[in-house]
Amino acid sequence: MASAEGKPFGCVLNRVDPSSSAPLRDLLSSLGAKVLGELPHLPQLSRASLGGSSLEGFELSPEVEGLLAALSLLSEGFSSPGAGGPRFLPEVFAFRPIGRARVGSREVPRHWTVSDLEGEIELLPFYEPALRELERGRKVVVLFCFDRSRPFEEGDLRQIPPHRGVEMGVFSTCSPVRPNPIGMSVLEVLEVRGSTLRVRGLDMLDGTPILDIKPFAEGRGES
Amino acid sequence: MASAEGKPFGCVLNRVDPSSSAPLRDLLSSLGAKVLGELPHLPQLSRASLGGSSLEGFELSPEVEGLLAALSLLSEGFSSPGAGGPRFLPEVFAFRPIGRARVGSREVPRHWTVSDLEGEIELLPFYEPALRELERGRKVVVLFCFDRSRPFEEGDLRQIPPHRGVEMGVFSTCSPVRPNPIGMSVLEVLEVRGSTLRVRGLDMLDGTPILDIKPFAEGRGES
Repeated sequence: MASAEGKPFGCVLNRVDPSSSAPLRDLLSSLGAKVLGELPHLPQLSRASLGGSSLEGFELSPEVEGLLAALSLLSEGFSSPGAGGPRFLPEVFAFRPIGRARVGSREVPRHWTVSDLEGEIELLPFYEPALRELERGRKVVVLFCFDRSRPFEEGDLRQIPPHRGVEMGVFSTCSPVRPNPIGMSVLEVLEVRGSTLRVRGLDMLDGTPILDIKPFAEGRGES
Repeated sequence: MASAEGKPFGCVLNRVDPSSSAPLRDLLSSLGAKVLGELPHLPQLSRASLGGSSLEGFELSPEVEGLLAALSLLSEGFSSPGAGGPRFLPEVFAFRPIGRARVGSREVPRHWTVSDLEGEIELLPFYEPALRELERGRKVVVLFCFDRSRPFEEGDLRQIPPHRGVEMGVFSTCSPVRPNPIGMSVLEVLEVRGSTLRVRGLDMLDGTPILDIKPFAEGRGES
């Protein structure tokens, strides 16, 4: 298990009273949350590193993992800031996936600008009425979660992108290791079937959680 | 207070046991959360509508509001789906702002493609090393939260954008009322001063929470 120091996303629940796991356990059960494994006692939990939204060493349902990730981010707000000062403002915004990327290939290009990979953006059936205007040939912006990237650390403020070999600020790169691990791709619509978009240009791993789809605006003067 | 039925973001904590507020209260205090006003008893809370991340009628600190928003989203996952089926997958991804938009004007254009408005993206000082390559003239993609838009409802799957007058699916519009209220603008960098970017093309309200900055890739073949 990696050291938990200096992790803004994936930090330690260090403000939870380690003498009792009752509050968290009671809250989770009053929410009807399923805990697949044994819920760790807080003395363990407070020492465990939350990597992204997954708690290493414990099998939890996604609902519980999500709640723990939110609590983990919150607890960061109460802990004393590191050398560089606070990394986040106090608010927490919680988002939930509206669908997933479906990609047959295991070889996924590093970026949509160099990808011809075809696959699907499979939304929940609820969203079918919202997809009607997305015809073949249209370009869409897809926002998604980098759900399998490691937590961002202070040393990731500057990174060396593999295809460049030069150190750059994270905001000048498309690295999946970011303060808020949200990805963005511009994809070409090939077909809409029900609530599924067939697209070209994918650079996401199979199963990637989708947050939003937006029209691609070419630039100033259009909309 | 608006009816809470059919709100995916901003729903009711309807799975919290209304006979006791102890679990939530204990958890919040074990996290060291400040509750500015009196924490509502759960019988009130379970009837109260959470609009975005703000709980109407109660004064709570942003930390507590964020936690409630996360819990609210979670509880949606356990409630029975409406006519259109579930609106979200079970995972919750929690993000926190890395800074805010600063805009002097109260007249904010409706979209970055038609905006010449100048202002600032003011990040926390922690991020200064990550901004170094963003020189004057560069274009950046800025992701932000629509933190003042009303909750998305089923009727918002199709909307009439004010400047178009034709009904369209939400994923073909730039409406701030979206399943996950994340906004995206492409802005021109005018100057970097410390951890603040001076930019042109703003279409955000003053104080808008910023989630991420990415390089703007013109299209296929570049990066």
